[in-house]
Amino acid sequence: MASESGKLWGGRFVGAVDPIMEKFNSSIAYDRHLWEADVQGSKAYSRGLEKAGLLTKAEMDQILCGLDKVAEEWAQGTFKLSPNDEDIHTANERRLKELIGETAGKLHTGRSRNDQVVTDLRLWMRQNCSKLSTLLWELIRTMVDRAEAERDILFPGYTHLQRAQPIRWSHWILSGAIAGNPLGVDRELLRAELNFGAITLNSMDATSERDFVAEFLFWASLCMTHLSRMAEDLILYGTKEFSFVQLSDAYSTGSSLMPQKKNPDSLELIRSKAGRVFGRCAGLLMTLKGLPSTYNKDLQEDKEAVFEVSDTMSAVLQVATGVISTLQIHRENMARALSPDMLATDLAYYLVRKGMPFRQAHEASGKAVFMAETKGVALNQLSLTELQTISPLFLGDVSHVWDYGHSVEQYAALGGTARASVDWQIGQVRALLRAQQP
Amino acid sequence: MASESGKLWGGRFVGAVDPIMEKFNSSIAYDRHLWEADVQGSKAYSRGLEKAGLLTKAEMDQILCGLDKVAEEWAQGTFKLSPNDEDIHTANERRLKELIGETAGKLHTGRSRNDQVVTDLRLWMRQNCSKLSTLLWELIRTMVDRAEAERDILFPGYTHLQRAQPIRWSHWILSGAIAGNPLGVDRELLRAELNFGAITLNSMDATSERDFVAEFLFWASLCMTHLSRMAEDLILYGTKEFSFVQLSDAYSTGSSLMPQKKNPDSLELIRSKAGRVFGRCAGLLMTLKGLPSTYNKDLQEDKEAVFEVSDTMSAVLQVATGVISTLQIHRENMARALSPDMLATDLAYYLVRKGMPFRQAHEASGKAVFMAETKGVALNQLSLTELQTISPLFLGDVSHVWDYGHSVEQYAALGGTARASVDWQIGQVRALLRAQQP
Amino acid sequence: MASESGKLWGGRFVGAVDPIMEKFNSSIAYDRHLWEADVQGSKAYSRGLEKAGLLTKAEMDQILCGLDKVAEEWAQGTFKLSPNDEDIHTANERRLKELIGETAGKLHTGRSRNDQVVTDLRLWMRQNCSKLSTLLWELIRTMVDRAEAERDILFPGYTHLQRAQPIRWSHWILSGAIAGNPLGVDRELLRAELNFGAITLNSMDATSERDFVAEFLFWASLCMTHLSRMAEDLILYGTKEFSFVQLSDAYSTGSSLMPQKKNPDSLELIRSKAGRVFGRCAGLLMTLKGLPSTYNKDLQEDKEAVFEVSDTMSAVLQVATGVISTLQIHRENMARALSPDMLATDLAYYLVRKGMPFRQAHEASGKAVFMAETKGVALNQLSLTELQTISPLFLGDVSHVWDYGHSVEQYAALGGTARASVDWQIGQVRALLRAQQP
Amino acid sequence: MASESGKLWGGRFVGAVDPIMEKFNSSIAYDRHLWEADVQGSKAYSRGLEKAGLLTKAEMDQILCGLDKVAEEWAQGTFKLSPNDEDIHTANERRLKELIGETAGKLHTGRSRNDQVVTDLRLWMRQNCSKLSTLLWELIRTMVDRAEAERDILFPGYTHLQRAQPIRWSHWILSGAIAGNPLGVDRELLRAELNFGAITLNSMDATSERDFVAEFLFWASLCMTHLSRMAEDLILYGTKEFSFVQLSDAYSTGSSLMPQKKNPDSLELIRSKAGRVFGRCAGLLMTLKGLPSTYNKDLQEDKEAVFEVSDTMSAVLQVATGVISTLQIHRENMARALSPDMLATDLAYYLVRKGMPFRQAHEASGKAVFMAETKGVALNQLSLTELQTISPLFLGDVSHVWDYGHSVEQYAALGGTARASVDWQIGQVRALLRAQQP
Repeated sequence: MASESGKLWGGRFVGAVDPIMEKFNSSIAYDRHLWEADVQGSKAYSRGLEKAGLLTKAEMDQILCGLDKVAEEWAQGTFKLSPNDEDIHTANERRLKELIGETAGKLHTGRSRNDQVVTDLRLWMRQNCSKLSTLLWELIRTMVDRAEAERDILFPGYTHLQRAQPIRWSHWILSGAIAGNPLGVDRELLRAELNFGAITLNSMDATSERDFVAEFLFWASLCMTHLSRMAEDLILYGTKEFSFVQLSDAYSTGSSLMPQKKNPDSLELIRSKAGRVFGRCAGLLMTLKGLPSTYNKDLQEDKEAVFEVSDTMSAVLQVATGVISTLQIHRENMARALSPDMLATDLAYYLVRKGMPFRQAHEASGKAVFMAETKGVALNQLSLTELQTISPLFLGDVSHVWDYGHSVEQYAALGGTARASVDWQIGQVRALLRAQQP
Repeated sequence: MASESGKLWGGRFVGAVDPIMEKFNSSIAYDRHLWEADVQGSKAYSRGLEKAGLLTKAEMDQILCGLDKVAEEWAQGTFKLSPNDEDIHTANERRLKELIGETAGKLHTGRSRNDQVVTDLRLWMRQNCSKLSTLLWELIRTMVDRAEAERDILFPGYTHLQRAQPIRWSHWILSGAIAGNPLGVDRELLRAELNFGAITLNSMDATSERDFVAEFLFWASLCMTHLSRMAEDLILYGTKEFSFVQLSDAYSTGSSLMPQKKNPDSLELIRSKAGRVFGRCAGLLMTLKGLPSTYNKDLQEDKEAVFEVSDTMSAVLQVATGVISTLQIHRENMARALSPDMLATDLAYYLVRKGMPFRQAHEASGKAVFMAETKGVALNQLSLTELQTISPLFLGDVSHVWDYGHSVEQYAALGGTARASVDWQIGQVRALLRAQQP
Repeated sequence: MASESGKLWGGRFVGAVDPIMEKFNSSIAYDRHLWEADVQGSKAYSRGLEKAGLLTKAEMDQILCGLDKVAEEWAQGTFKLSPNDEDIHTANERRLKELIGETAGKLHTGRSRNDQVVTDLRLWMRQNCSKLSTLLWELIRTMVDRAEAERDILFPGYTHLQRAQPIRWSHWILSGAIAGNPLGVDRELLRAELNFGAITLNSMDATSERDFVAEFLFWASLCMTHLSRMAEDLILYGTKEFSFVQLSDAYSTGSSLMPQKKNPDSLELIRSKAGRVFGRCAGLLMTLKGLPSTYNKDLQEDKEAVFEVSDTMSAVLQVATGVISTLQIHRENMARALSPDMLATDLAYYLVRKGMPFRQAHEASGKAVFMAETKGVALNQLSLTELQTISPLFLGDVSHVWDYGHSVEQYAALGGTARASVDWQIGQVRALLRAQQP
Repeated sequence: MASESGKLWGGRFVGAVDPIMEKFNSSIAYDRHLWEADVQGSKAYSRGLEKAGLLTKAEMDQILCGLDKVAEEWAQGTFKLSPNDEDIHTANERRLKELIGETAGKLHTGRSRNDQVVTDLRLWMRQNCSKLSTLLWELIRTMVDRAEAERDILFPGYTHLQRAQPIRWSHWILSGAIAGNPLGVDRELLRAELNFGAITLNSMDATSERDFVAEFLFWASLCMTHLSRMAEDLILYGTKEFSFVQLSDAYSTGSSLMPQKKNPDSLELIRSKAGRVFGRCAGLLMTLKGLPSTYNKDLQEDKEAVFEVSDTMSAVLQVATGVISTLQIHRENMARALSPDMLATDLAYYLVRKGMPFRQAHEASGKAVFMAETKGVALNQLSLTELQTISPLFLGDVSHVWDYGHSVEQYAALGGTARASVDWQIGQVRALLRAQQP
């Protein structure tokens, strides 16, 4: 006997039910989020039972009416949990029975708890992904509005965090809007995974497979990875050293010690959440690894992960939208950060246009950069004579190279940083937004 | 000066180039896989240059011809790497210049190494995903062939690893074929990510974004998670205790110590690779987290991950196909594992059909199980009189419940374990296979 | 201006403080766990200020007295949070000021919030690790008690889940107790990381480094990995097919659908938590990756991870102790699972003792296994004549090989499965328990 | 039969051994790293056999001599693998048998392959951890040498990447040396896990437990996380915007497109490897999760992880040492980045010393910062009269606050940025280096 074993080996617990186990096993603390989905699923199921002749019309009506009452109690905050309600499904069934009596027991004919769990979660996610999708839509719209308004502002493009070439500020904003664009993925997820028009092909797989959860968590992880990179850029651009942007006070925090500081807490939190969200994805995959097929209680881990990640995404997307919409930019600092050496590639292209192979032109331009550094002058301050010691192809028209506005206009290929190209990108994103309008 | 600093602070290295750094920086050891994609990409690019008037027709022909020669050397194994070839792109460019002279330098007009890297990897992945897709197709075809041939064999379905209800063996096979079905995902990946018909919207994003890599690694992780679960089931079914299946010798290994043993090494390796593949996915996302936008050398980590995961998937899919196609099943042991208590749900349904609400019927059936356990007899050995002490609804026709074949036929809903339902699943998967025929 | 920008680009929020940002930034929802540590730390700090002459004795006494009052309010549940209390530190400071007036403002002389955060967390963890250590101690003591009581029960040892050799049941229990033994690690963690006798060497590192958190999370992950393996074994041993053990009802759950089932939910939950806990560890490391030195708000992620993992470990350790202490074992099934082929290694050793090199003996024993399989008899039913066709070294005394009790007694080396060896292991673990007695 | 099954269900493979499975199963491609450990382990084991009377003295000598010959062949690169050598253990045993004949077969009496695998890996790691420990020692010594030489250079300390207070450059270096100090951990690992003086307590656990691998991988992950943060700082400090440091050419790379660029590839690679290394750790834990006890082939994943991580750590530590030892610092830029508002905390302390509670002083100093900003002057350019409008406690001696050198000297507590405190830190790290001298 359990109790004797208990005595024999001195375990903490002797009795019928270990209260810690009960709490460990119970999911009501978090799966109450599912109350609406559970009622919705049960209403659909009772209609199915009636159609299959397993409920009379009257019984079905009684159940539907009872379920509406249950939903009302949840909505008004008057639903009272009893100590034995281990999950939302037992809680709702218990309450239904109190309300309509024995007929309630017919509702569960032919469906298992595991069916209910997975159906409710799918229903909840369908609704929730739609909300997240709207928040994403708002973020991207804010970015593209801003990109449109500020497309004449130039600042340095970086690779390896080294200044590379002048680009439009809007080009940077759009790179974020595009990279972070998960609208399509999300819709695809909904369509492919949560569209109940499609029938689950295999009943064993139906209760055991959590691809829709894993994919949601991975989508969130990838989306957060993009947002962490955008946050990193903005944190850098907001340092004293860069001074390209300034966060609104609404998204900054002061220091408890240093009166002069204003910290970009909002962006740091966005960056940090990439780890948290990915941790949930990693945890779920590890839980799934090597699990025998069909339902095992291990699968209960899915719900807290989904709820937490969904809450995190919702906050992050709204804060990111707020940050972007209220961000101040310092266009004079941006302009000041442009320097003639960032036009070294343009100088090479000048030679290419005069017929020199690119590799040679690249080398010649490199020599000019070195010469300027050695002489301690800016690249555009080398005299024509000096340039001609490097290549006789340099002529008076080389002076046209030293114009940042002209430089960016060269990149007129689709996706480039020329004004027309940026406008095209804005148009593309706007078209996407229209197509996905929530 | 560097060298003086070196002297001053006693670092290991003083000189122009640290050889360990050179090796650390170099990617040629693994990116040589990309030789074909690199040549293919350069050929397309040189055509683009000619169209843009940056190469003459003669120069383009010279470059195309030279690139073909380079490809031929790789294909025949005669390409000789030089010590300065730090990556496949410099190696191919260096060789092209040796073959055709200065014109080679014109090939790189207006494209950066980072453009080349990401284009080559996309080209390689397009081809490689197609190969993996074929291997997946083979695995699923093997499973569905087998499901079709063996659909009359029944064995226990498990949840929580506890025997639950009788199911068809084919139902289990199909649950694997369906759960593991990544054909659609893969094609979608190709279409959405690697379809070069679509233009990259933003040039900053183009070199910096690695969604196509992250998504490939996650697809592989999720696919391996499914395969790890299938492997776990088969390892269990192959234990002495279950004895449902026997691995072919071709996929087993003996023990160095215990002469009687035959270990399911193939399945254990499949199971273990879920961790390895996921580790690569986790590693890449961590590398991407918080990275400033555009190209940073950190992104170089993508290639080894992709190559290793691709090799692993290729081996796993082929071994899994071999295991499934040569697996022996012990149908008599499967039959022996079915026991009357697995029909307790059927007993409850018997009462439901007589009008009892399911919750009451479930309780009544539970009482019967308890009564049988107490008396030490099988559930179907309870007499009618005994059953009637539980409910007067039990009548002589209850004996029809004790038929496993009849039991499985009840689950005729789509996705169920009835013969017709399993046939329908086979049909669905076959239709999918036809649609995706490599 | 922020508000104008807001208007211009249509962000959701225009105003002084974004309420979603406020909630996103706030940590009071979870860091209230730290109230006791925060008061304790502040009391110590005020003593330090007095010693440094920055507080008078009277001021210090006033602060100490006020902090005791704050603590009392928390302990009695009467502490009232105000809407502006963004974290536990501001809440306690605000309340202190209400209680003792302006002197409260002196408490924070020369310490930053970041110092406080990290000190409080270290204090909390020191106390909490001690609690977890006690729970671990209980689990291991339960295991060793049980190992001692049941050391005469034999059952199959497995490798690759294939039956290998007979072992003592206690040998299995002890392998868990030893593998899972994290007592030492834990104490070491305390000593090395949380021992405040040692001084933090560098002030920049002190607020920014989270090794003590990462190591705690990794310790928990590794501990859970061990427990997941023990849970897996027990789930298998509890299947109908193995039938070696039976979980107490207190740790099982019935099925909502199948009346005959009893599912090992407790063990499945333990197994699943390995993923959850590791996910937190993975998330924290990802958050830390590439973070600039010193404090960044990203570090706020540490606390929820620690609290959640600590709660999970506490529940898991108690449930595992309950499971082990109430587990029923079926010794007759264990005995029945032993079969002569598991003595094939003993048969080889028999030949080794007669002078045959082990590799040859292994081969000879393998031939005997094959012969028995071919003839359809058990290995011990081969006649002496039959055995002698394999090797003339087989003599009448070979019959002594077929004794499971004798077989296990051969493994008398330290760590083996012989009775004396198991007793030695019990002694070793008991000595460890005594040394670590909480 | 397997072959018939193969025919029936159209698997790719029909025959005795699937060559892909053979390759999948084989570990010789990477475990040949273990040749030396394998010989060393076998030599020790043969001495044990002789002592136990299972080998004669002559047989032992023959085996020892043969093993020496095997080792010599490996060392000289003349060892020839045969196609059937699936792992290093079978390869060495096969060769030994060729060299000394049947006696070779006696070497494996009473030990399993799994024992050998785990012993060899422990031996290899003991040696390898020692090498890594030496490289770490070199890195830390380089850092502390540099910290000592440059302790008079001041630059801004940052929190949240916002300029906070002036600190010594050496203080930053030491924060890295201390945070990254893994010498202790490493030695502890060696002592606790790989010290063969201690006996493995339980034979089941001995072959199945991989804590020593998991802990090594986690140590490497944590160490890399620290290095990724140091790399991030140096990448930022090396941007045009910060211009505090300049990487030696030996650790930078030029751009293929932009002649003016010099990219910090070495630091970016160090940063990226944190992901790779952690991915291996994550992968191993996922592989271990839920694995049945004792040996399963899944455990074979351990070795590639260890070898790859060890190689990565070795390269990273050497490159990091090179980077630090050759890094140029721009002390004039560092000085220029200090600004009077970074002394706002000092201004508050000035008031604290005059008797004002810190919270009030912090507020007063904040007002001064705001006043200076409003007037568009530096904080130290506010007149005494202006300051006195904020607090009458401001007197003429407030001018002493505006001295960066004086400011840092205030932080003379252990761990602070005062010269004496930095000297003390240098002393502490030097003491550690002496204690751990390789």
